[in-house]
Amino acid sequence: MAHALSLAGRGLGRVWPNPAVGCVLVRDGRIVGRGRTADGGRPHAERVALDMAGDAARGGTAYVTLEPCAHHGQTPPCADALIDAGVARVVVAHEDPDPRVAGGGVARLRAARIDVTVGCLEGQARAIQAGFLSRVTRGRPWLTLKLALTLDGRIATASGESRWITGPEARRRVHAERAAHDAVLVGAGTARADDPDLTVRGLGDVGPGRVRIVLSRHLRLPRDSRLFQSAGDPPVWLIHAGADAGDVGAWEDAGARVIEGRSLGTQVDLAHAFEALGQAGLTRVYCEGGGTLAAALMTADLVDELQVFSAGKLIGAEGQPGMGALGLARLSEARAFDLAEVSALGGDIFHRWIRRV
Amino acid sequence: MAHALSLAGRGLGRVWPNPAVGCVLVRDGRIVGRGRTADGGRPHAERVALDMAGDAARGGTAYVTLEPCAHHGQTPPCADALIDAGVARVVVAHEDPDPRVAGGGVARLRAARIDVTVGCLEGQARAIQAGFLSRVTRGRPWLTLKLALTLDGRIATASGESRWITGPEARRRVHAERAAHDAVLVGAGTARADDPDLTVRGLGDVGPGRVRIVLSRHLRLPRDSRLFQSAGDPPVWLIHAGADAGDVGAWEDAGARVIEGRSLGTQVDLAHAFEALGQAGLTRVYCEGGGTLAAALMTADLVDELQVFSAGKLIGAEGQPGMGALGLARLSEARAFDLAEVSALGGDIFHRWIRRV
Ligand SMILES: NC(=O)c1ccc[n+]([C@@H]2O[C@H](COP(=O)([O-])OP(=O)(O)OC[C@H]3O[C@@H](n4cnc5c(N)ncnc54)[C@H](OP(=O)(O)O)[C@@H]3O)[C@@H](O)[C@H]2O)c1
Ligand SMILES: NC(=O)c1ccc[n+]([C@@H]2O[C@H](COP(=O)([O-])OP(=O)(O)OC[C@H]3O[C@@H](n4cnc5c(N)ncnc54)[C@H](OP(=O)(O)O)[C@@H]3O)[C@@H](O)[C@H]2O)c1
Repeated sequence: MAHALSLAGRGLGRVWPNPAVGCVLVRDGRIVGRGRTADGGRPHAERVALDMAGDAARGGTAYVTLEPCAHHGQTPPCADALIDAGVARVVVAHEDPDPRVAGGGVARLRAARIDVTVGCLEGQARAIQAGFLSRVTRGRPWLTLKLALTLDGRIATASGESRWITGPEARRRVHAERAAHDAVLVGAGTARADDPDLTVRGLGDVGPGRVRIVLSRHLRLPRDSRLFQSAGDPPVWLIHAGADAGDVGAWEDAGARVIEGRSLGTQVDLAHAFEALGQAGLTRVYCEGGGTLAAALMTADLVDELQVFSAGKLIGAEGQPGMGALGLARLSEARAFDLAEVSALGGDIFHRWIRRV
Repeated sequence: MAHALSLAGRGLGRVWPNPAVGCVLVRDGRIVGRGRTADGGRPHAERVALDMAGDAARGGTAYVTLEPCAHHGQTPPCADALIDAGVARVVVAHEDPDPRVAGGGVARLRAARIDVTVGCLEGQARAIQAGFLSRVTRGRPWLTLKLALTLDGRIATASGESRWITGPEARRRVHAERAAHDAVLVGAGTARADDPDLTVRGLGDVGPGRVRIVLSRHLRLPRDSRLFQSAGDPPVWLIHAGADAGDVGAWEDAGARVIEGRSLGTQVDLAHAFEALGQAGLTRVYCEGGGTLAAALMTADLVDELQVFSAGKLIGAEGQPGMGALGLARLSEARAFDLAEVSALGGDIFHRWIRRV
């Protein structure tokens, strides 16, 4: 199962709207097949592993990181494929909460007299599956917020200089994290200030391009920007709330997908925007700032994971804060996160925190 | 030598104005004596180890973390004591830059035909000795600045609430770090806001009380405070620049040592104050804030080490910054620190950085 989980992890960022699943087929103590959900979400992991095993799967054990599907979607049910292949035993990390499956896959296997075990390495599997589980059970993608900060929590000097706060190893890790998410998100302030291209670079083949999302109330975004020039591929999605038809049209003509959100106060309603992203199939979104959007996402309680890159520098209180105002009245209202990982990374440190539930 | 260094480390915070030295005596592959500089700085490590070994030192090897002294101070020279004991070989981590020693100890040993090796585990020894080396070569103590921050670099909410940002394990570590320094320092703002007592608690016997230092231009500090009530023991030192004689007298009557500093602009001249602390014999000072003093120390380039405790919480931009304004014009002017240590500590993380020279 540990091997199946590592295969599953390699699918992150490549398989939405489907879950990133891994499957290993073992017979007589030897691995006869293995696979992960393919880029774009199909074929499923079980299908890939069965095709590799051929007849060798008969009488063997399948380790699958998520309950095999039981419904006829765009592919035939994996539960049936395992039955047809004559697998004797199936070990599953956890059930699929998707209402079209929800125990149906396990039931189908058991009805075919296959020995099924559920719950193997379930915690690790759920962590890998957090994005898909979020989309299915909460109707919105898992949101990771990245902060690249000085030790005193700044992302730029007073004059806006921010290149580079962290070192090359940290920036490389950011690209790996972008690749492990379905989409990268920034606020319009960052899009205007930095003219970022938000692509994954320097990692070789990482599969289909990650979606690049910008949130902007009125779509006042420069047309001489890298995002505009390259809006067709990898995809650019814009979420607005009441932009002019002219701006919408220009971006659509450039190849972008423009999503009309709802307004809340003077801004885009973030909870609603994340529902729209969930409906569009996204399971994992990586937000890279800036401070205004980061604070708005925290306040809307949409942040599931924080990734902090801390550099051994100090900018001082007049520098730009990585996190805008949150309006807390008391310290006890501060959102708490649990440490998931901490390590040195080049000259910086990297720490990852998961929202306490 | 590794064993001698661990003995030396145990003396930190207890032996000023002397260096924290460790000594191990070995004969025929057995440890026959060991010791560290005693609390208050005397007897020296070599004396302690020789007394333990007695006759067994004859013909043996002494591992000493710092060059043995050669001058008659308040104790006879350790070089002579090693010669008298008949030690055959002395291994030293590095020479003592104190002008009264400065190679004289090694020369004296060699003149007595003792085999001397210098430079064993020198880097580790110099790190432990950083405070003493700073006092002797720069005329001021090593300064460690502690920051207990949220992930976004805040030390308190807008209304000043700061208890507790970090968890009990972090607070315990702070007490251990206080104990490993000769003195704890805060700005008058923190003294007024928090009424701290700045003592070492919860660690059992840690030797003589660490000096508690407050910096305040006019000595406007409350007399119903814990520091005033207990100013005699452990020692309270106040550094001012032009306080009223009445205030000075009241604190001296309470048992405090009042040091008249120099003013620079509207505040106490920090470089001058640190020279005064060096002259008073301090080798290691632990500054615990607040943000105004922290920024002033950074600007004066007096900070040698940063210890950061980061809690998995966010307060937002309206919270109080852990570091005040630094007045940097460009990012390249930001002071750089090199990572020395990073680890999880309870629910928080602890990271230590050393000023890049
Ligand atoms: N060092 C780093 O890692 C890093 C990373 C990112 C950014 N930065 C720096 O951060 C600065 C930009 O940050 P910023 O805080 O000014 O802008 P921002 O957070 O990037 O963007 C804020 C903008 O997002 C749009 N938005 C839409 N809905 C929103 C909502 N509900 N809440 C908040 N914003 C919403 C609005 O754009 P409209 O005005 O179009 O409606 C708003 O003005 C730049 O200087 C950049 O260099 C640094
Ligand atoms: N969470 C934590 O770890 C933590 C730690 C410490 C403090 N805090 C919080 O921080 C707040 C206090 O910080 P603060 O920034 O207001 O005050 P501060 O930095 O503690 O003290 C500043 C004061 O130090 C004196 N000073 C003397 N020479 C100075 C110089 N050269 N430069 C700067 N200051 C000099 C001045 O006192 P005079 O006005 O008397 O001249 C000045 O007003 C409190 O709310 C406290 O709770 C939190």
